[in-house]
Amino acid sequence: MKCRVCSGRIVIELRQHNAAFCAEHFMAFCRRQVERAIDKFSMFEPGDRVLVAVSGGKDSLALWDILVELGYAADGLVIGLGIDDYSEQSTAFARDFADQRGLTLHYHSLQDEHGFTVPSAAEATKRVPCSSCGLSKRHIFDSVALDHGYDVVVTGHNLDDEAAVLFGNVSRWQRDYLARQHPVLPAANGFPRKAKPLVRLGEREMAAYCVLNNIDYVVDECPMAAGNKHLEYKDLLNTMEVASPGAKHAFYFGFLDRAAELFSAAVEAKSGRPDENISPCVVCGSPSTNEVCSFCKLVELASRPVPVEIDTRRDMLDG
Amino acid sequence: MKCRVCSGRIVIELRQHNAAFCAEHFMAFCRRQVERAIDKFSMFEPGDRVLVAVSGGKDSLALWDILVELGYAADGLVIGLGIDDYSEQSTAFARDFADQRGLTLHYHSLQDEHGFTVPSAAEATKRVPCSSCGLSKRHIFDSVALDHGYDVVVTGHNLDDEAAVLFGNVSRWQRDYLARQHPVLPAANGFPRKAKPLVRLGEREMAAYCVLNNIDYVVDECPMAAGNKHLEYKDLLNTMEVASPGAKHAFYFGFLDRAAELFSAAVEAKSGRPDENISPCVVCGSPSTNEVCSFCKLVELASRPVPVEIDTRRDMLDG
Repeated sequence: MKCRVCSGRIVIELRQHNAAFCAEHFMAFCRRQVERAIDKFSMFEPGDRVLVAVSGGKDSLALWDILVELGYAADGLVIGLGIDDYSEQSTAFARDFADQRGLTLHYHSLQDEHGFTVPSAAEATKRVPCSSCGLSKRHIFDSVALDHGYDVVVTGHNLDDEAAVLFGNVSRWQRDYLARQHPVLPAANGFPRKAKPLVRLGEREMAAYCVLNNIDYVVDECPMAAGNKHLEYKDLLNTMEVASPGAKHAFYFGFLDRAAELFSAAVEAKSGRPDENISPCVVCGSPSTNEVCSFCKLVELASRPVPVEIDTRRDMLDG
Repeated sequence: MKCRVCSGRIVIELRQHNAAFCAEHFMAFCRRQVERAIDKFSMFEPGDRVLVAVSGGKDSLALWDILVELGYAADGLVIGLGIDDYSEQSTAFARDFADQRGLTLHYHSLQDEHGFTVPSAAEATKRVPCSSCGLSKRHIFDSVALDHGYDVVVTGHNLDDEAAVLFGNVSRWQRDYLARQHPVLPAANGFPRKAKPLVRLGEREMAAYCVLNNIDYVVDECPMAAGNKHLEYKDLLNTMEVASPGAKHAFYFGFLDRAAELFSAAVEAKSGRPDENISPCVVCGSPSTNEVCSFCKLVELASRPVPVEIDTRRDMLDG
């Protein structure tokens, strides 16, 4: 096979597009897919200030690179999650990337600023680590975006991620989640706009993009995510994709075209306008449906010292 | 593990129900699941005349057996599809089952009555064999039910089948198919009522039911169905079920509870009342949206002799 554009030597074959590309035209292809997603879903406009949620993995670094290449004003934000070596390595990759290109990277540390890490929060809440990790990231992305006047927060969720999340939501037909699964969520109720410009590109393309652009990134999966359902759904979708190239795209974009609106309408009809119940958290001022927002509740729980007194009293009662 | 009911020696463990049963209580469990499906979806009433669409496989024979055990007036119908040895064996298993129990079994042969077989129809239509097979079966089930005054046609589709069909429909978000996927379709526009009383039981349970009841059935998959997407989806769902027992049930019944109505409403809102376009087929009198129904078109195409004259003329033109 030869490059679809210039007939040059190919570096990648994309069976789902029935195409192959040389390095130069593969990178142009990736940029075009990102631009198409931004346009089609009205994610943001040239001139908007974009905050990239950076993990140090291939997706977020490739996304940041592509946005800068496309001429967008994009800064990064990386969060120190305190997952041992994994977080240190991830942060280092993000810093190196930003330094090499002279880009602005914000850094926030859960431990330094809020007194807990993802592993310690998992222990304190007795829930899966992904739960407090996601909550913390959403809170910090939102507040940094608002504090610094960014127009939109973008994340590196790619087609594989979104199809796997959709698969999970469909496997249990969770109407509320299905109603909210969209590549762009408008700013509302004090939350900034959020967008996923990589929805037209898969994991394999993003890894190839990084390799071809000499972008170093953390390759390992997060050690806390082992056994995660999300990875199981990705495997199932990969099996489908091998049997029918394009299956992931058909599944995800078919949902957006022909089903998403049905779930949004059903949830809206049932719940009315949930915006009316949102007010500023009494601790941090972030928008919340409760007096104290979920993040501040997590901070209180996870940064609290272990209640030794209670254990002692129980020992005394038992003894 | 011991039988959940009597603590006797178990013959089967059902992880999705977190239960195990002895032979006697497993059979009672199967009957109860069928009765629950019949009640919950108002499939039919005691006293209704039921026509079981029999293939000679485990599902349809187990279903027939269970319905008779539950006291329903159920006759069978088997169709000679002309798929070589496979059809002959299937029909023989159905006949033996009916003879042993003194039950009424209707028999119709595609070749004898309509001049084609499933393989010859596939060749004539240049479509997958499952296409003309499904069309022929639906047509004959419907017309036999109406001719003999049955109240309902029941088929042996089990949970694995229905979940796999749903999976296929969801993978491409086919609204029209999703809108019609229900365990019972009411009689309408000249079509008889149809129901799937095995939707609460899986393949493994039906195979066990047959073995425990000494019901001989054709074990092989239909040789025409090799490479069928349906089997691929079943494999994927089995992988999910192993990781999360109950996943198939949650997927299928979650759809019926929380999504099916959204698709039905959307399709109805778009297409209006399609019933108005239905009139009797001018050839056979069956209800159809066209002047000649799809089955009669198939009969015309598949039973037609090969048009040798046209080939000869083309040879002359080429030569």
